[in-house]
Amino acid sequence: MRQSQIRLSISTHGQALYEVTQDVARWLAETRIEIGLLTLFCRHTSASLLINENAAPAVQRDLLQWLSASVPEGSQYEHDSEGPDDMPAHIRTMLTGVSINVPVAGGRMELGTWQGIYLVEHRRTPHQREIVAHVLGE
Amino acid sequence: MRQSQIRLSISTHGQALYEVTQDVARWLAETRIEIGLLTLFCRHTSASLLINENAAPAVQRDLLQWLSASVPEGSQYEHDSEGPDDMPAHIRTMLTGVSINVPVAGGRMELGTWQGIYLVEHRRTPHQREIVAHVLGE
Amino acid sequence: MRQSQIRLSISTHGQALYEVTQDVARWLAETRIEIGLLTLFCRHTSASLLINENAAPAVQRDLLQWLSASVPEGSQYEHDSEGPDDMPAHIRTMLTGVSINVPVAGGRMELGTWQGIYLVEHRRTPHQREIVAHVLGE
Repeated sequence: MRQSQIRLSISTHGQALYEVTQDVARWLAETRIEIGLLTLFCRHTSASLLINENAAPAVQRDLLQWLSASVPEGSQYEHDSEGPDDMPAHIRTMLTGVSINVPVAGGRMELGTWQGIYLVEHRRTPHQREIVAHVLGE
Repeated sequence: MRQSQIRLSISTHGQALYEVTQDVARWLAETRIEIGLLTLFCRHTSASLLINENAAPAVQRDLLQWLSASVPEGSQYEHDSEGPDDMPAHIRTMLTGVSINVPVAGGRMELGTWQGIYLVEHRRTPHQREIVAHVLGE
Repeated sequence: MRQSQIRLSISTHGQALYEVTQDVARWLAETRIEIGLLTLFCRHTSASLLINENAAPAVQRDLLQWLSASVPEGSQYEHDSEGPDDMPAHIRTMLTGVSINVPVAGGRMELGTWQGIYLVEHRRTPHQREIVAHVLGE
């Protein structure tokens, strides 16, 4: 049994889903681990990780639209030191989460046909985000 | 240290919680892993995994009712190619997630007294769903 | 490769976020695992785990306020055997989750600068809560 770990860096430019499936798959292939457990971890409190539909771009817009409507910007928050999108970003991160696992078999992630892995940026301004990828297996 | 992996198949017939605790426990017992980490992964974007109360059936109805009221069907979605329950299913999957971990000790999952593991089906029509179970330990 | 596991016990006194970052970090240091995967699992259905901002206390109040407003107490629930905060606690646990992972490097959790780990208590009365911590690595 062995393990491998890397930090992936993603440049974001506003609230959107940034697909990282191919970046992760490429790194996983290099580790040559055939069977195991892959973990992704987002090192932020205003950006999160999500596995969802990767075929229709409208799905991504509807996901963001729901988050935007259900966790609206506004004057209801006590914490607003970084602007109106600050506290909603923390709440949306709470709802979507910062760690996910995908089992590995045959040297590939066991994703379903329609699943893609996304970093979700919840802030309006550009950010540099870091994801830690870790795999254990053989 | 060793690992084991299996795909569990679940037939669903409408929006409901389908308990898989016993299926997972049975497979885990067969692996004879005493201490380790169990991971479950749902290979879909309109069905998810949930650990919640397994005693009172009313809890399950209330959980689904909240999802239904907070992520309603309607004409507000851009993506509706598979019908009115399509996009809400993706959003409800986002909120509940597709991967969970349970530590293993004494050959059993370390679940609390009231915890059960569920596949949550978010679509109205029957589906065949796949969960990948993976365990690492010794 | 080796693993270690422990149960952490947390006394709660009402709906709040209880930070466990330092408790977990101390235990991790004792295991002397340098590189690996840390998993935390909450053994309850009305308390959950969360990684979020640990600098401004107002963030914690706003997170709880959103949960309180979006999953309100009230007469709309079928399940209310333990009082008005019973069913909202199960729903808030569903939304925030009971298992999280953090990769380990250099003997430390790979948390970002602003990330803290919290047990979220969703019940009003005092409870004794258990978190299982598990680490795999070397």
